[in-house]
Amino acid sequence: MPVPGPGYSITIRVEAPPSASAAGDLTSAVGRVGGVITAFDVVESHTDRVVVDITCNATSAEHAKDITDALDQMPGVSVRKVSDRTFLIHLGGKLEVHSKVALRNRDDLSRAYTPGVARVCQAIAANPEDARRLTIKRNTVAVVTDGSAVLGLGNIGPAAALPVMEGKAVLFKKFADVDAWPIVLDTQDTDEIIRTVELIAPAYAGINLEDIAAPRCFEIEARLREKLDIPVFHDDQHGTAIVVVAALRNALRVVGRDLADCKIVVCGVGAAGSAIIRLLLHRGPADIVAVDIDGIVHSERGDLDPNLISIAAATNKDGMSGTLHDALVGADVFIGVSAPNLFGAEQVKTMASNAIVFALANPDPEIDPLEAQQYAAVVATGRSDYPNQINNVLAFPGVFRGLLDAHANTITDSMLLAAADAIADIADGGRINASFIVPSVFDAAVAPAVAEAVRKAATA
Amino acid sequence: MPVPGPGYSITIRVEAPPSASAAGDLTSAVGRVGGVITAFDVVESHTDRVVVDITCNATSAEHAKDITDALDQMPGVSVRKVSDRTFLIHLGGKLEVHSKVALRNRDDLSRAYTPGVARVCQAIAANPEDARRLTIKRNTVAVVTDGSAVLGLGNIGPAAALPVMEGKAVLFKKFADVDAWPIVLDTQDTDEIIRTVELIAPAYAGINLEDIAAPRCFEIEARLREKLDIPVFHDDQHGTAIVVVAALRNALRVVGRDLADCKIVVCGVGAAGSAIIRLLLHRGPADIVAVDIDGIVHSERGDLDPNLISIAAATNKDGMSGTLHDALVGADVFIGVSAPNLFGAEQVKTMASNAIVFALANPDPEIDPLEAQQYAAVVATGRSDYPNQINNVLAFPGVFRGLLDAHANTITDSMLLAAADAIADIADGGRINASFIVPSVFDAAVAPAVAEAVRKAATA
Repeated sequence: MPVPGPGYSITIRVEAPPSASAAGDLTSAVGRVGGVITAFDVVESHTDRVVVDITCNATSAEHAKDITDALDQMPGVSVRKVSDRTFLIHLGGKLEVHSKVALRNRDDLSRAYTPGVARVCQAIAANPEDARRLTIKRNTVAVVTDGSAVLGLGNIGPAAALPVMEGKAVLFKKFADVDAWPIVLDTQDTDEIIRTVELIAPAYAGINLEDIAAPRCFEIEARLREKLDIPVFHDDQHGTAIVVVAALRNALRVVGRDLADCKIVVCGVGAAGSAIIRLLLHRGPADIVAVDIDGIVHSERGDLDPNLISIAAATNKDGMSGTLHDALVGADVFIGVSAPNLFGAEQVKTMASNAIVFALANPDPEIDPLEAQQYAAVVATGRSDYPNQINNVLAFPGVFRGLLDAHANTITDSMLLAAADAIADIADGGRINASFIVPSVFDAAVAPAVAEAVRKAATA
Repeated sequence: MPVPGPGYSITIRVEAPPSASAAGDLTSAVGRVGGVITAFDVVESHTDRVVVDITCNATSAEHAKDITDALDQMPGVSVRKVSDRTFLIHLGGKLEVHSKVALRNRDDLSRAYTPGVARVCQAIAANPEDARRLTIKRNTVAVVTDGSAVLGLGNIGPAAALPVMEGKAVLFKKFADVDAWPIVLDTQDTDEIIRTVELIAPAYAGINLEDIAAPRCFEIEARLREKLDIPVFHDDQHGTAIVVVAALRNALRVVGRDLADCKIVVCGVGAAGSAIIRLLLHRGPADIVAVDIDGIVHSERGDLDPNLISIAAATNKDGMSGTLHDALVGADVFIGVSAPNLFGAEQVKTMASNAIVFALANPDPEIDPLEAQQYAAVVATGRSDYPNQINNVLAFPGVFRGLLDAHANTITDSMLLAAADAIADIADGGRINASFIVPSVFDAAVAPAVAEAVRKAATA
């Protein structure tokens, strides 16, 4: 059952009789249908009526409608207007382009534009590397999507993906002062995506691929890394993998275990799952068993695509086959980036003692975290309403800050691992426990620490 | 002889003896080699020396070096550092991406990003036109170049063109609150440019093509206009044409002439010249004679490309051939967008009485404006150091403001003409004279008037 949250917050303007009990009657009506009131503001008061703005959290569009109807059906009460606060803050978009130079007079104009700008152009023509010094390239990252795998919404296309890319740019600016710009592409053809990113690349010092479906995303990332002299990062892969590796390091410390002794089950072998497996392999676990919708991934399975073939070759040392439930028996760690409600407490009971469960499917995890807690020692999710939220925002702003500061031409797994360790170290320091294995997304120390770690790894 | 200007302003930090005459000696030394001092700041004063920042305008890099050397060779004086103010304001680029939403806490995050943003995405997926309401598309224009014809610098490529595109975005913001973003393309292939713009278009409500070489620019513009449902404007063509038509309307009013009686010579038939001819034809001049590097354009010439063939068909009613000098004999108006120093006062003398001369080649006009003034009634240039500067910044910010406000899907010649009339009207009102046929680029009334005219024409 979803909990009413601020992602679904509405403000309902109602006209009500000016009776002493009006306020209580209105709030009771909202409460009876499950709305959570966060503000109650009288905006007009007359002898015959009051006008009130009731702001409340709901769980869905239907729920918001139920709340509105409940108010509208009260005797003497009428609903004037319903505003959706999420839509209100999106009006006109979330980004704007600011000028860093003043244009007060002709002198300013002749330096920032013609004729002065011509000399700056000539300097870059003579020495292309100067673009990193004299243009927006120094601090600017492209956030690129084809809209094919947006959040949990699937293939909604480029225009509908734009609010997410804008949100990403807002986070880049807020947490790491990186200027990020959305590039939403009206194609889902691998070659066209690659070529387009290549052609627009001169203005950017890094590419953040976002919400591009697997397996297309692997080829796009790999080929762009070959073609471009700037780092290419796919947040759904590398951002998630960094935070998972960080969280797992601290979770293992909480239970006093060593990764080298752990069997890890990774469920979901799309962008995130594949990258988690590849990054974890650098840390030398006892074994990883990958599971997808068709069961345990092993080399004998006939349906493997090139990505799964490479995953099968690097995992499942014992050649296990079977279901997710089979894989969980005796496993030390479960990491899910797949689908809701795949197993319950009884399966966690079959895992090794002091099991670690990261159920990261969003918004509904692979297992209800309260069920998982019955037998697991540490539980994490992707949700903000449980402890231990695995959130990419811990990684990508600082990663790009570090890459930009280093003038990095590429990104390596050792930089990703350095970022993971920086995140883990911020949460660590004696403070970690089963409910605190990663720092808060609002911890201002995270991005600078990640940036510094990445910068050092990039210039090492 | 170029005049020292703020586009070439340097600050020289010198150590000098603390004598009473030091300041005078330093400024005299700069003046003797032609530098124009704009600021003199003592930054340190000691018993044995003073440290002074001398800011002065120069004409070129060599001239700046001469000034520096002149100071360095003075007895007891040493130059510590030379800063170029044009380069200083370009450090790190001229644009940044600002967030319009606050991210103070978890509630903000859940509205601007996940989970709230998902509903905004779904709304756009259901109704794509909502992208103009709920994303940056509402106010955002792409400034697109391939770097093939940048200012007077020629084919310097995408990275070196970036400072100009950034400057353009600064002007868009300053004069019309339009968010413009530079797209510098690493290709000069017509098909690739068209396809790339098409693929990135979903985030933009308009495309401003910039500094793309002719004749490629004509095909790119024409095909993009067919493919896209947002307006495509090529500033080198349409921006210039708008301001020329505006200036010519007022110039004719100053001399009391009617366009229907005028023979107009247009010299230079690239992007700007072709667009000027096409837009002027809507206003019904007696005749236009186009001239390019090979002489007068006429249908019998064997070397015409498709653009020149269409120009030849619409101009030169008498089938004239010959040189620019031939074309000028008896002409009422000269409009040059070509090359420096093509003719002198003696050719202006052969034009009709009360001739109008727009010598717009930059930085050096087709004729020295002081020479032209000997026989012409009205003279205009592209330069800021003479009266009547024909500057595109009078047009493009307001044009796009109007297009965005109208949610325009296309741009038509009637909108361009409406913009031209709006510019002409601002300068008019009894105030126009031979030295004032267009408003100042800093006249804050221009962009809103242009925007309103374009918006009306777009929604008519």
